[in-house]
Amino acid sequence: MKKQRRCIIAKQKNQRNEIVEKVVSLAKRRGFVFQSSEIYGGLNGCWDYGPLGVELLKNIKEEWWKFMTYREDVEGQDASILMHPRVWEASGHVENFTDPMVDCKQCKSRFRLDVLGEAINDAKKEKIIASFIEEVKGSEKESLVMSIIALDIPLNEKFEKILENSKVSFDLLAHISCPNCGTNNSFTEPRKFNLMFKTFVGPVESEDNIVYLRPETAQGIFVNFLNVQVASRQKLPFGIAQIGKAFRNEINTKNFLFRTREFEQMEMQYFVKPEDDVKFYKYWKEARIEWFKSLGMSPDKLRFHDHPKEKLAHYAKDATDIEYLFPFGWGEIEGIHNRTDFDLSRHEEYSGKSMKYFDEETREKITPYIIETSAGASRSFMAFLIDAYEEEEVNDETRVVLRFHPRLAPIKAAIFPLVNRDGMPETARKIEADLRPFMRVFYDSKGAIGRRYRRQDEAGTPYCITVDTQTLSDNTVTVRERDSMEQYRIEIDKLLMHLLEKFR
Amino acid sequence: MKKQRRCIIAKQKNQRNEIVEKVVSLAKRRGFVFQSSEIYGGLNGCWDYGPLGVELLKNIKEEWWKFMTYREDVEGQDASILMHPRVWEASGHVENFTDPMVDCKQCKSRFRLDVLGEAINDAKKEKIIASFIEEVKGSEKESLVMSIIALDIPLNEKFEKILENSKVSFDLLAHISCPNCGTNNSFTEPRKFNLMFKTFVGPVESEDNIVYLRPETAQGIFVNFLNVQVASRQKLPFGIAQIGKAFRNEINTKNFLFRTREFEQMEMQYFVKPEDDVKFYKYWKEARIEWFKSLGMSPDKLRFHDHPKEKLAHYAKDATDIEYLFPFGWGEIEGIHNRTDFDLSRHEEYSGKSMKYFDEETREKITPYIIETSAGASRSFMAFLIDAYEEEEVNDETRVVLRFHPRLAPIKAAIFPLVNRDGMPETARKIEADLRPFMRVFYDSKGAIGRRYRRQDEAGTPYCITVDTQTLSDNTVTVRERDSMEQYRIEIDKLLMHLLEKFR
Repeated sequence: MKKQRRCIIAKQKNQRNEIVEKVVSLAKRRGFVFQSSEIYGGLNGCWDYGPLGVELLKNIKEEWWKFMTYREDVEGQDASILMHPRVWEASGHVENFTDPMVDCKQCKSRFRLDVLGEAINDAKKEKIIASFIEEVKGSEKESLVMSIIALDIPLNEKFEKILENSKVSFDLLAHISCPNCGTNNSFTEPRKFNLMFKTFVGPVESEDNIVYLRPETAQGIFVNFLNVQVASRQKLPFGIAQIGKAFRNEINTKNFLFRTREFEQMEMQYFVKPEDDVKFYKYWKEARIEWFKSLGMSPDKLRFHDHPKEKLAHYAKDATDIEYLFPFGWGEIEGIHNRTDFDLSRHEEYSGKSMKYFDEETREKITPYIIETSAGASRSFMAFLIDAYEEEEVNDETRVVLRFHPRLAPIKAAIFPLVNRDGMPETARKIEADLRPFMRVFYDSKGAIGRRYRRQDEAGTPYCITVDTQTLSDNTVTVRERDSMEQYRIEIDKLLMHLLEKFR
Repeated sequence: MKKQRRCIIAKQKNQRNEIVEKVVSLAKRRGFVFQSSEIYGGLNGCWDYGPLGVELLKNIKEEWWKFMTYREDVEGQDASILMHPRVWEASGHVENFTDPMVDCKQCKSRFRLDVLGEAINDAKKEKIIASFIEEVKGSEKESLVMSIIALDIPLNEKFEKILENSKVSFDLLAHISCPNCGTNNSFTEPRKFNLMFKTFVGPVESEDNIVYLRPETAQGIFVNFLNVQVASRQKLPFGIAQIGKAFRNEINTKNFLFRTREFEQMEMQYFVKPEDDVKFYKYWKEARIEWFKSLGMSPDKLRFHDHPKEKLAHYAKDATDIEYLFPFGWGEIEGIHNRTDFDLSRHEEYSGKSMKYFDEETREKITPYIIETSAGASRSFMAFLIDAYEEEEVNDETRVVLRFHPRLAPIKAAIFPLVNRDGMPETARKIEADLRPFMRVFYDSKGAIGRRYRRQDEAGTPYCITVDTQTLSDNTVTVRERDSMEQYRIEIDKLLMHLLEKFR
């Protein structure tokens, strides 16, 4: 076969949306991701994983599980999605996991404050602020408003700061007309809207029977801390890892799998002596970014975004995001947090049960600090998918290829008989049967061999194995590698071990 | 080491509850299953899987996934838990997935009708029925009531039949006093209570925004039928498999993991030409019961319970349960159903989108029949756990052992240095490090060797490897098998392959 001419088309930086669109389209066409309940028009913020997607997702989760729990100091668990409602009081979610919302009294539309701000253009904002300054002049609110106006930040952000400041928010709202019906001065006072999905357990729909779909898996680990520690006889430092679904009633879902209402998390909570927190925070920060790199994610598209001290969540002493450079910009795919003893202390307070660890060496009871590594399985899926996507020009044709790490690839090997006669299908089927117990394989006997290769490139299959005329005489097959498109021959007897070696 | 005397204690048939209690206690102590949110008093009907439990559950799911999808004619998928609400209208769940309930007007207690019936003793029932017959005498309801009374069934069942017959239920209720407050004639008319958990998507809690937590995973497969078929280019017959959580707002949860509100299903829907339904129903029935047996579940505790024609669900042409003999009696762990073309037809009707398959051979569009295999992952977990539990008398001590199939065992091998000196720990650690990438291992250096064995027996670890004095001279270790308690020596270099062979 002729050596193919290759030239890589750089991912077009100016056409970022185009790339997401192409990936979404490929994802649907090849069965990675479908819209949830598509035949009914879809359910916003929910997605289904198709045949290739479910394998990619499983592989990502399995790699995470092995990396995080095939070690002596980390135990796994799987807590239920529905938990006792007091858990979310202790965690602060009932009180704080909220967005401010307003209703238009006229048309009954409901808006999140920041979305309302976004709906107004700059010229309008300029006008609104001018008239608002006139209004507060001489009042007790003047100094507050003027201190925000004096900040060295864009107009947009000044507007947002006033709108979301509870002392003046309602006053500013009086100057904004409803983006839906256009009525002036028609907004209610901002109210907190909780992002947890709630439901009722048992037949009575009363306040007493409310339970929430967990908005994060972490709390399921915290409340089980002592159960796991005692059952596994672990000593500090040790971790508990969990993979599972979580739900957030996001008002704005966006960017494909990036912000969804139903998603999957891969979380590990590492319990340490308080004095060891800095050491293990650093340790896990490095370990986690290396994990993404070890599975082939482009290092130049990965970075830490350390949270400045003044922006830390109330429970955190230190926090960083691992960000991936998506076509729409940098986005968090994992957070690493030093949560201090906040979580265990709160659960001790709210449950009345001791959450303390008995240190046998010092004979003291201590409340461990927690270093959290919280990765999005769905977001990692999206990052691995987009990172793998490439178009290249091969023999004047565009080749679309998903360059998955072999361990993540949904299909590990495809087997082709070159033609459907001369014993080739039988030999190919035999190879398929031999490989199948060890890996996901795909058999394809239809169409030109070049087209069959292309189909597997699009699915991200790292190895294609072709049974051809020479096979029948010397028992060798052609192995074609996805990335280099190089081909070499190997004896059928050595094929399985050869491939298994590649996946190690 | 002395040959140990063994004698198996038969599982006590008369102390069935005791066995469940022992398993629940072991499950908590060793970290298989904890009560959900235990520190807050638990959440009824929800359970958490601990470090050993999550591995057992993962292994069960992984074995199912390989068995069901590592074949050419079955694709996997993973649909979201939240789906478009019309899905549940089409499926019939909004209308039919209900239990009849009544409220006491006096004390506001709520009862499911069958539970109310159970709260009344036989003598009382006799009385109630007698006075009820008096009441209906001469009325249009008399013949209906008398036809039930005339049936050759126990009093209990007669009572239940009248109580749950919508034509006379309310009349009978007037004769029953509230089990909670004792008030006579205080029940509301029976109302249907839907067992789906509902929640609201978006910020407005209105009828328009209701979504349900799926009560079964099957519908996620039906609505994706054509998406999967097109993306994977499958032809009939082919299947779609899925593992995932489902939720039912059960009023009565019971029997540990058997009836819970949150549970996990392993479902496969096999799409066939209508004329092939009987053939594939038989095929999957056999394949599925064999799967449980192949993973070591006692064949004499497995049976089919075929549903009689008159008791089939409205969508089913044929249905059978695979039942396991739990200590509390036979219980369903999987259902196999011939669902006909009911599901695809309904979704076609409700969505207005064609759900038909185009048969290239006959050039016809057909609505496939569906053969469903629906297994409970949580119930399978419970069955495998209880089936594995055994107590035996060894040297006058009771040995508790979980005889898991090696592929299901949470820990595959434990490594012990006989004593903590003479280089034994170093050698043992080296073995641990060599095995760990391939299997879940456990290192234990504490306590008498006999106690270490017992701890692993309780965890169901099939192989214990001891580094002893002889190891240091000839590089062999002792392998001790869990079930036979036999011991043999093997060279360290051959250990990995030896164990991997056992797990094949």
